[in-house]
Amino acid sequence: MFEATKVGRTVSKEDFKEQRDELRTQLLEVQRALRDTNITVLVIVSGVEAAGKGEVVNRLNEWLDTRGVQTFAFWEFSDEEQERPRYWRFWRTLPPRGEIAILFGGWYLAPIEHRFRGLCDDAALDAELARIVDFERMLTQDGTLIVKFWFHLSEADQKRRLKELSRDDRSRWKMLPEKSKFSEQYQAFEFVAERVIRQSDRGIAPWYLVEAEDKRYRDLTVGKTLLQAIRARLAQAVPSEPAPTADPLELPTTPSAQITLLDQLDMTQALTKDDYKKQLAALQAEVNELAWRAYKFKRSPVLVFEGVDAGGKGGAIRRITSAVDARLYRAIPIAAPTDEEKAHHYLWRFWRHLPRAGHMIIYDRSWYGRVLVERVEGFASDDEWRRAYAEINDFEEQLVENGAILLKFWLHVSEDEQLRRFQDREQTPYKQYKITDEDWRNREKWPEYKAAVNEMVARTSTRHAPWTLVEGDIKQFARIKVLRTLCERLRTALAEDKGGEAIGSGIARCGDGRPGK
Amino acid sequence: MFEATKVGRTVSKEDFKEQRDELRTQLLEVQRALRDTNITVLVIVSGVEAAGKGEVVNRLNEWLDTRGVQTFAFWEFSDEEQERPRYWRFWRTLPPRGEIAILFGGWYLAPIEHRFRGLCDDAALDAELARIVDFERMLTQDGTLIVKFWFHLSEADQKRRLKELSRDDRSRWKMLPEKSKFSEQYQAFEFVAERVIRQSDRGIAPWYLVEAEDKRYRDLTVGKTLLQAIRARLAQAVPSEPAPTADPLELPTTPSAQITLLDQLDMTQALTKDDYKKQLAALQAEVNELAWRAYKFKRSPVLVFEGVDAGGKGGAIRRITSAVDARLYRAIPIAAPTDEEKAHHYLWRFWRHLPRAGHMIIYDRSWYGRVLVERVEGFASDDEWRRAYAEINDFEEQLVENGAILLKFWLHVSEDEQLRRFQDREQTPYKQYKITDEDWRNREKWPEYKAAVNEMVARTSTRHAPWTLVEGDIKQFARIKVLRTLCERLRTALAEDKGGEAIGSGIARCGDGRPGK
Repeated sequence: MFEATKVGRTVSKEDFKEQRDELRTQLLEVQRALRDTNITVLVIVSGVEAAGKGEVVNRLNEWLDTRGVQTFAFWEFSDEEQERPRYWRFWRTLPPRGEIAILFGGWYLAPIEHRFRGLCDDAALDAELARIVDFERMLTQDGTLIVKFWFHLSEADQKRRLKELSRDDRSRWKMLPEKSKFSEQYQAFEFVAERVIRQSDRGIAPWYLVEAEDKRYRDLTVGKTLLQAIRARLAQAVPSEPAPTADPLELPTTPSAQITLLDQLDMTQALTKDDYKKQLAALQAEVNELAWRAYKFKRSPVLVFEGVDAGGKGGAIRRITSAVDARLYRAIPIAAPTDEEKAHHYLWRFWRHLPRAGHMIIYDRSWYGRVLVERVEGFASDDEWRRAYAEINDFEEQLVENGAILLKFWLHVSEDEQLRRFQDREQTPYKQYKITDEDWRNREKWPEYKAAVNEMVARTSTRHAPWTLVEGDIKQFARIKVLRTLCERLRTALAEDKGGEAIGSGIARCGDGRPGK
Repeated sequence: MFEATKVGRTVSKEDFKEQRDELRTQLLEVQRALRDTNITVLVIVSGVEAAGKGEVVNRLNEWLDTRGVQTFAFWEFSDEEQERPRYWRFWRTLPPRGEIAILFGGWYLAPIEHRFRGLCDDAALDAELARIVDFERMLTQDGTLIVKFWFHLSEADQKRRLKELSRDDRSRWKMLPEKSKFSEQYQAFEFVAERVIRQSDRGIAPWYLVEAEDKRYRDLTVGKTLLQAIRARLAQAVPSEPAPTADPLELPTTPSAQITLLDQLDMTQALTKDDYKKQLAALQAEVNELAWRAYKFKRSPVLVFEGVDAGGKGGAIRRITSAVDARLYRAIPIAAPTDEEKAHHYLWRFWRHLPRAGHMIIYDRSWYGRVLVERVEGFASDDEWRRAYAEINDFEEQLVENGAILLKFWLHVSEDEQLRRFQDREQTPYKQYKITDEDWRNREKWPEYKAAVNEMVARTSTRHAPWTLVEGDIKQFARIKVLRTLCERLRTALAEDKGGEAIGSGIARCGDGRPGK
């Protein structure tokens, strides 16, 4: 694979000067054109040690308009990063639409290093690479252009450069292979790099291998390739991939073939007032205990509340928040996105709020909006909501891997009960603001919403992140069911943790370079 | 001061129920009204141990609509917080306009604890309280309503409650005074609390002392007081304070009395091409060395670039960014604020970007927009830009205290040279985007801008954060002057740090609870 990067390509000083000036002008032009689009550009700068990655990045910063370019290096994990799912640090760096980010190594750095050092095997590496491919595909489909450069040197060239660097004070942060085994290490590194590149080299986010010995050749090639890639994307919009095939089932038209999970709910389940009060008090006391226990064990309870309008989400959430120590949880209401949020992938706004390990977070509406309201109302295209199931499952898997205890509640009420509540809201002065024309319009789409919920549960209720459907016609019953489910889940999850450590799914992943993992 | 909180006030269960329901309705109403305003509400919950601060916050979360309320507790510093100016963690919690934040202790927690433990003296405490008063005034003038509650218990009541808590598993996170010296400690704490409250009890952000023994009395009183405070603010807009008196000087009308600092610049200073190349290469090498040194010493270089249109800011910045390792710096171009930024105090957008200790940050335009373009164009009211000088000086002081090395450059060109550059931009295809009608309009206000710059330098060029005026007619000269100034400053600042620690101004402040300070 790397043979073509050792052929000795060069560019003369004169040619460089001549071509550079034209290139700079063109780069500034496409950068300006970019600004008015929905495109985000991610440039990943990777390669062997001493290939001059820092020099390349400085060159790009010199050529591009620094307004609209951010560079990110991934240093040691901060404790805020350590206590969140591993990809949080990458989500933090994603630039808004119209801008460019240059990432040193990006998500490739840790897996390569881990495999090279023998901290994981090929299978673990492959699993991580599959995640990377999914991640890059997701970003690409959202309009991101990913350009990945790999800078390579021949064994002799690298050895020479490393020797030079070892005399240079600035090299102190660089890893220097032990000289005695250099040849062996060089080959081992190439072996890992080849596996990584091969498995993550997709048409939508290709790798570009660049011979790094001649700096002028290297920099001009990078500049021109980046220019070409942005130009092509500007001309062509998002590259087409086969559309996701997750079409909804085609159902026979008989009503009995269209029953949904929601139709099976027994909405008549009730509770006496005394039972309600007694159980509520006991469960509220327990949930606070468990929240403290989760804090101690650094396992974040992540609660998702979805449901029909007037389904009782607010009341159920309040029964939790009024019981749990306010230092321990955060409730995030999901309303219209801000413009910063709109300028990113739709999952970005959820990633940004993720709590530090041990803290509870409650999402009042969530990322499931993508496959519910956005699907039914047509705010998301068919492609967008169909691929969202897989995106969501992957997101939740990462939460769970990091030790989160994830619970998802769908609060349901019957059509009749919803009507009663709507009318009540209209008649009670301080509730009027809770009812809008939109609520009445949504009611007309009841069957579509039911179908969407049914499919959502089918595709996203997983062992590690199950949905709980809550019969909501009788509020007291619903609140107790939510609290009881929450307590049971936390109790079980935290009992596993005899040692008080975050274990998550127990799967050690290649690339998880966080200390203590 | 605390006598009035030990009189034994109570509310019966029946009265509580009756008044609570009405109160809840009213709170929801004002909360809804709040949403359409520019008002932010900060509720600070403070007081003696075991007064039930957590219970009060849970109560408020129960009564208010959780959409629009965030609660923040200040746990141990994360390393990301430790490596930034101390108030960064508070700026992070400031909610957008229309919303409410409840802060446990807020900025009072650390000073009280420090003084109580004898880690600082009264003078240091007073200095910190003066900063707090300034901070609260700044937020209030920006439309924030600050409501501060202090919950108090008599000595006997507190002792009893602490004993109860000590049998309660949940109290593990609470500090328990040693029993033998309880009475002594109680009085010492009251002594500190009184000093803190007295000095920070301003009309614009008053303290409310609440007797905490009877929970129903306590909670109803808090709810009603908060309701009343929000209502009053909704009715009255921002409370009027004497307008800042920082009027510009009234100048005699003779031209010789109107000379500015900018008129004194010798714009003819030049450099030969050879000198330029030689000096540029040497300074670029040095600035990279110094940036690494700053990184090692955890002292952040903070660079501010302001200047007339076409003054050469971009070129000067690029000479730095192309020299410094891209892993070490971030360049932040300040353009129009996003909607999230608009929903906060104007300094919020600068606080949010502050780098971790040791990393360089370059602001391409900055907080000085407030006293330059916003002043001249009338985007900021007279009050707003006049009080900005003090706000800015305080902000910069906090940066420097935290170890930042702050440099501010004004890049100036003569009117004739600007005209030439504008015309050049219009005629060069890839530069056309850099010139707009606005640039031409700004030119007409040249005298106003000059006056604004003159006053800005007069009011904000301080020993720890001086302005450097750069003669920019000859670009090469300007770039070298910027680089040389930067190198000299970094060299001097980092030479002080023989030990490689962040020292900042060397002033230890009460309330700086970060480890290693």
